[in-house]
Amino acid sequence: MINLNEDTITGAVIQRNAQAKDARLRELMVNLVQHLHAFARETQLTEEEWQQGIQFLTRVGQMCDENRQEFILLSDTLGLSTLVMALNHRKPAGCTEATVFGPFYVHGAPELPLGADIANGAKGAPCYVSGTVRGDDGRIVANAEIQVWQADEDGFYDVQYTGKDQLAARAVLRSDADGNYHFRSILAEPYPIPHDGPVGDMLEALNRHPWRPAHLHFLIRAEGHQSLTTHVFRKGDKYLESDAVFGVRSTLVADWVRHEAGTAPDGSRTDQPFYVLHFDFVLARAGA
Amino acid sequence: MINLNEDTITGAVIQRNAQAKDARLRELMVNLVQHLHAFARETQLTEEEWQQGIQFLTRVGQMCDENRQEFILLSDTLGLSTLVMALNHRKPAGCTEATVFGPFYVHGAPELPLGADIANGAKGAPCYVSGTVRGDDGRIVANAEIQVWQADEDGFYDVQYTGKDQLAARAVLRSDADGNYHFRSILAEPYPIPHDGPVGDMLEALNRHPWRPAHLHFLIRAEGHQSLTTHVFRKGDKYLESDAVFGVRSTLVADWVRHEAGTAPDGSRTDQPFYVLHFDFVLARAGA
Repeated sequence: MINLNEDTITGAVIQRNAQAKDARLRELMVNLVQHLHAFARETQLTEEEWQQGIQFLTRVGQMCDENRQEFILLSDTLGLSTLVMALNHRKPAGCTEATVFGPFYVHGAPELPLGADIANGAKGAPCYVSGTVRGDDGRIVANAEIQVWQADEDGFYDVQYTGKDQLAARAVLRSDADGNYHFRSILAEPYPIPHDGPVGDMLEALNRHPWRPAHLHFLIRAEGHQSLTTHVFRKGDKYLESDAVFGVRSTLVADWVRHEAGTAPDGSRTDQPFYVLHFDFVLARAGA
Repeated sequence: MINLNEDTITGAVIQRNAQAKDARLRELMVNLVQHLHAFARETQLTEEEWQQGIQFLTRVGQMCDENRQEFILLSDTLGLSTLVMALNHRKPAGCTEATVFGPFYVHGAPELPLGADIANGAKGAPCYVSGTVRGDDGRIVANAEIQVWQADEDGFYDVQYTGKDQLAARAVLRSDADGNYHFRSILAEPYPIPHDGPVGDMLEALNRHPWRPAHLHFLIRAEGHQSLTTHVFRKGDKYLESDAVFGVRSTLVADWVRHEAGTAPDGSRTDQPFYVLHFDFVLARAGA
C-alpha cells in the first residue's frame, strides 16, 4: 500500500475496496475503478485535464436543484441513460419499447379522470390523446396507472418556470375496464434540453445541438406487468434522427394528426386547430 | 441514430461526439464513453444503481464550496489522483518523488522570510523544518519557490474552520543562495479526510477508514526545473500503510525528531518539547 505507481495503484485500490461487506458494491467498485483508471492511463490524462474534469463535475453538481438534474442530463447526453434502459428492459417481441426517463419527472402529479384536460394552463394547440393498454398476451389491461408528462409549446416543462409552483401538462390517469385511456393536453413541440449549464457547454464543445424531437413521456404500471418508461414521438419531427439524448425508437414514432377547428374527439367544439394522437401500449408480463 | 440498443449505443455516441473540433477532446470523449458504457454493460447496472449513482455524484458536487472540494476527495480516495500524478511525473532516478496535491491548497498564502514561524496561530507542538533544494545534477537551486501547507494538531487546515478568514500554517518561502530553506511551524498529526459528506459515506460503505498519516505538503517551483508537488510524511505514523488517498512513498517518509524543551534550532529558548525535521528536495530538470 505504499510506493504505488501507475501500474500498481489500480490493484491497491481494488484490494482496499475489497473490505466492503456488500458483494454487489464490491463488484461495482472493482469494475468502476478499473475503467476509471484505464481511462486515465490510456489517454495519459494530464493534470490540467484532470483539473478541468474536477471543475466540470463540480459545476454539474452545483447546477442541480429540486427542479433541475444536470447529472441526468449528462448521463442522457453521453448515452448512458439509453444504455441502462436497454440493459434493464429487454422487452419480449411485440411489447412497447422503453426509452429514457429524462430529468423532468415529478412525484405527486394530479390524479385526473379519463378525458380530463391535463394542460392546467400550459400553452399549446389542443391535443387529444387516446389508446389502449394491453398485455403481450393481447388481453386488455384495466386499471393501469398511466403517468404522462410533457413540455409546452415553448419547450419548457412546468418545473422549469421559476416562481410557478403549479404542476401543468402532467397527470396520473387510469385505464378503464376495457383498457382504454384518453385525455386532452397540448401539442408537444421539439425543445432543447437545458443548455445554459455545464452539459450545454459540453455539447457546444462537441459541436452537438441540444434538441430533442417532440414527445410525450409515459410511465405505465399495472399489476402483473413490468413497468414501462417510454415516450411517444411525433412523426416528421426534424430531430428524430439526431435526438440529443439518443432516445428515439421507430416503433415509438406516431402520427399526430392535425384537424381544423370544429368538433373535437370528446364532442366539444374547438375554435382552433387541434391534434389527435392514438397510441396503444403493450406491457410485458412481470418476470418475462 | 434511432433504435439504438445496448450493442449500438456506444458507437452512436462516439460518432456524434466525433464532430468536436478539438482533436484531444475527441480522443478523451471516445475513451470516456467506451469505459463509461463498458462499466454499465459489464456490471449490468440496474436502474436503481444508476439512480443511486446520480444522487451520489449530485451530493458530491453540492458538498463543494470555496473551502471544500469533495470531487478531489473522491478522486483521491479512488486512487485516481495518485494515478494521474504518477502518469505526469515520471521522475528521473534520484529525484524527490511526487504525490497527491490534495484539496487544501490555497492561492495567496503569505510570502514569508526564511526562518519565519508560519503557524500564524495554528495549534501544535513547535516544529523546525529545514533542508536544501538541489537539481538532479547535484547543484544547489537558489531562489526556489517553496510553498508549504499543513493541518494543525486537531487535524484541520485553516480553511476548514468556518468563520475564520485567517490563513495559517501555510506560506510561500524561497531557498537562499545556497539552496537552503528553514522555517518554524507546528507538528503535523494524522487526520481523517473530511468524511461527513458523500465520500465519507462511500468510505464507510467500503469499510475503509478516512485517515491520512501526518504530513507536510510542499509545492516547489524553480526556473529550469519541473515543479514538484509532494508531501513529507512522519516516520512511525500508524496510517503510513493505509493512507486513505494512497499517497505514501517510502522515500518521502522522514524522522521528525522530538527534543525536550530547551534551545531550538533557531537559537531561541522554548519551554515545551519541539520537533526537528530535515528534508532535502531534488528537482528534475525541465524537459527531463
